[in-house]
Amino acid sequence: MAISEDQIPGVEPAPRETEGFVLNHTMLRAKEPQRSLAFYTRVFGMRLLRKLDFPEMQFTLYFLARPDDPAAIPEDDGERTAYTFGQKGVLELTHNWGSENDPELAYHDGNAEPQGFGHICFSVPDLAAAEHWFDTNNVEFKKRSDQGKMKNVIFVKDPDGYWIEVVQPSLSKGLGQ
Amino acid sequence: MAISEDQIPGVEPAPRETEGFVLNHTMLRAKEPQRSLAFYTRVFGMRLLRKLDFPEMQFTLYFLARPDDPAAIPEDDGERTAYTFGQKGVLELTHNWGSENDPELAYHDGNAEPQGFGHICFSVPDLAAAEHWFDTNNVEFKKRSDQGKMKNVIFVKDPDGYWIEVVQPSLSKGLGQ
Repeated sequence: MAISEDQIPGVEPAPRETEGFVLNHTMLRAKEPQRSLAFYTRVFGMRLLRKLDFPEMQFTLYFLARPDDPAAIPEDDGERTAYTFGQKGVLELTHNWGSENDPELAYHDGNAEPQGFGHICFSVPDLAAAEHWFDTNNVEFKKRSDQGKMKNVIFVKDPDGYWIEVVQPSLSKGLGQ
Repeated sequence: MAISEDQIPGVEPAPRETEGFVLNHTMLRAKEPQRSLAFYTRVFGMRLLRKLDFPEMQFTLYFLARPDDPAAIPEDDGERTAYTFGQKGVLELTHNWGSENDPELAYHDGNAEPQGFGHICFSVPDLAAAEHWFDTNNVEFKKRSDQGKMKNVIFVKDPDGYWIEVVQPSLSKGLGQ
């Protein structure tokens, strides 16, 4: 299907060599894994699909997602690792062992200088209900839906201070030009 | 289905208030949009789903994804914006107007200090073929599949220097403990 974006400089059709590629995950470092797991499983309803320990390198990886079909998650650990890497919309949290005991350590959100990464984003079916849910869970807001220039867009912070945008698709139709 | 990860401290079942939540996108700032669009549409076969301009705030957002069903992409701009925010596995690139003309500007990859964000990751059906494809396109490698402690894992860099991990799910079963 032709859409206007196909004519924008730089854009080209997907080469056949990229068939089967999947944008699988985004990795963020997390200082205190228990705190982050509690946040993402409760507030955003994510499932911990896989935990992988790397004792030689002193870190653990946690892979979280909201699977469309939880019954399809394999029980076998190796099969579940392969399943995890085949999904879309996965959040990988990296815990460098001992980070939770370092009083000087605070991860960088990418929005203060030096800038780079900006945020992750969840869409929700009902933005007002989500805003109430965040308040119920004492989530820290960066911007409420009625604040700032972009109405109907919420930004909250995760336990490490990373920004999480929250939008309702049906309210986003008029965004931008 | 019960998996061993369900017993890890902090993890709890998804509350009903999170029904319909979708991990939609990850936002990275891009200095030169044409360069980044060429890279992500050609090398990773992504489709530009939506471009949103915000003249008042002097920035443009580019939303890229690999849609499962391209025929489902709406032609109407507003409908396409709503569709875009409902998908999983979307990459949002933010272009702050004029960044391409600032010789001092280089975005921060999150792996040098100060650390935070680490990388995005694509999974591919054939890691060796993907490595060859990256070479064909003169993509810069951070780590090839036969280098380092984690075999069968590739890291390449995007035009801004952000790290992109590349894995083949069927080769990942033995990763970690």
